[in-house]
Amino acid sequence: MPRFKLTIEYAGTRYSGWQIQKNARTVQGEVERAVAMVTGRKDFEVYGAGRTDAGVHALAQVAHLDVATSLTPEALLRRMNDALPSDINVLVAEIAPRRFHARHQAVARRYLYQIARRRTAFAKNYVWWVKEPIDVGRMREAARSFVGFKDFEGFAQHDEDVERSTMVLVERLDLVERGDLILVAIEGSHFLWKMVRRVVGVLVEIGRGGLEPDAAARMLDDRAAGAARLTAPASGLFLEPVYYEGDPRMSGAEPVTALKQVASNR
Amino acid sequence: MPRFKLTIEYAGTRYSGWQIQKNARTVQGEVERAVAMVTGRKDFEVYGAGRTDAGVHALAQVAHLDVATSLTPEALLRRMNDALPSDINVLVAEIAPRRFHARHQAVARRYLYQIARRRTAFAKNYVWWVKEPIDVGRMREAARSFVGFKDFEGFAQHDEDVERSTMVLVERLDLVERGDLILVAIEGSHFLWKMVRRVVGVLVEIGRGGLEPDAAARMLDDRAAGAARLTAPASGLFLEPVYYEGDPRMSGAEPVTALKQVASNR
Repeated sequence: MPRFKLTIEYAGTRYSGWQIQKNARTVQGEVERAVAMVTGRKDFEVYGAGRTDAGVHALAQVAHLDVATSLTPEALLRRMNDALPSDINVLVAEIAPRRFHARHQAVARRYLYQIARRRTAFAKNYVWWVKEPIDVGRMREAARSFVGFKDFEGFAQHDEDVERSTMVLVERLDLVERGDLILVAIEGSHFLWKMVRRVVGVLVEIGRGGLEPDAAARMLDDRAAGAARLTAPASGLFLEPVYYEGDPRMSGAEPVTALKQVASNR
Repeated sequence: MPRFKLTIEYAGTRYSGWQIQKNARTVQGEVERAVAMVTGRKDFEVYGAGRTDAGVHALAQVAHLDVATSLTPEALLRRMNDALPSDINVLVAEIAPRRFHARHQAVARRYLYQIARRRTAFAKNYVWWVKEPIDVGRMREAARSFVGFKDFEGFAQHDEDVERSTMVLVERLDLVERGDLILVAIEGSHFLWKMVRRVVGVLVEIGRGGLEPDAAARMLDDRAAGAARLTAPASGLFLEPVYYEGDPRMSGAEPVTALKQVASNR
């Protein structure tokens, strides 16, 4: 029975997140429905690399599944896309080694967050529009505190399903201005539940003057729950590539377009 | 009574085009409703530089209106945006000279068309997804035929409301590849009804091998209606800046992002 690796982009707006739930429309649910329709099988499960929350998007979620089918990866991709709703798109389907596991073998993940300095007619669901002026210099100063191997307990929502350390290695955190967009790209070993949205929320609060730049370091040290009330909205967040052993890393950050290129997966 | 010049971006997907109609939701209708709500006046009319069809977008439509109000342009903009639906956004509001006319004084217009070589989860309403392989070299060869002062009768839909020459000066037609997107930017004195979509439709048909590159020149010479059946869908089309005397011209072409910058209007 072949193991398939799928790379999937989706607009999370209409979905209650990635993970399958009873009585809710989820991305995993739609992907499994499409695989079942295309292969005629029901005895499989799709494992995603990262669980994205309601309203969060993905430029390159990775998933794997074992399913008894004679379809080639190319045929599986084409038929799945015919069966999927227009806001979920399989970018790549390929045969993976038996030992490949989308979640366990990921060595790093990258997220992109889009902050808009102005109202936009085209992308309300893809940005966080911050009305107050933002000083990106202050954000940059604060961002340095988040890089390294740190305890992010104060930035994590407790997750009953997962018992794991709150120590996270953040490898890089880039802030890029593109016109009236501020892009935050953050790359790390793994991320705790809601962590990226709280890091962005604290950075924006510092950028608009509600906190001083040194507040970021203090909030890490205190492990206090203060970051929770600053959680940035889901709309601006995109899961970018999931990295496996040997994958080249992206650098910089580009705004999302109709066809954002995800270099490491093409 | 002040004359205001408005620069407006909108996603045309939910609208029956720019121009006001009975029993249909139009962009002009929404803009006039917002002005009435904000100023308390009903004795005004909004004049747009270009009529866009149903489903066609604008990155920088220009309009003017005379309305009796003591609001500053900044206050008018802010209050209009609070009153407008999220897919229409006033980018700039400014006082214009009495002689300014959005349509009559425009010296050139530019359109952007986005062709996607693959399915996209984020932008079904903002591209034309062409499934067959496209040879951009063939498109470029053909595109040269459209540049210059030419008779576009074969590319125009007859418009009972407007009696005008079918001679059009196309100043430039650029084809730019950005990943899996092919961008067509076309700039000219004015455009006939459906002309841009038919030029793009013919170029794509040449690119995918259904017509030879010299078909473009022949279709212009013949003034035949053959281009009509190749009309590209509205979804990929954006009205870019409308140029007035002295405005700097854009060059190249960039994909539409959440906050596409329209340099000449900022």
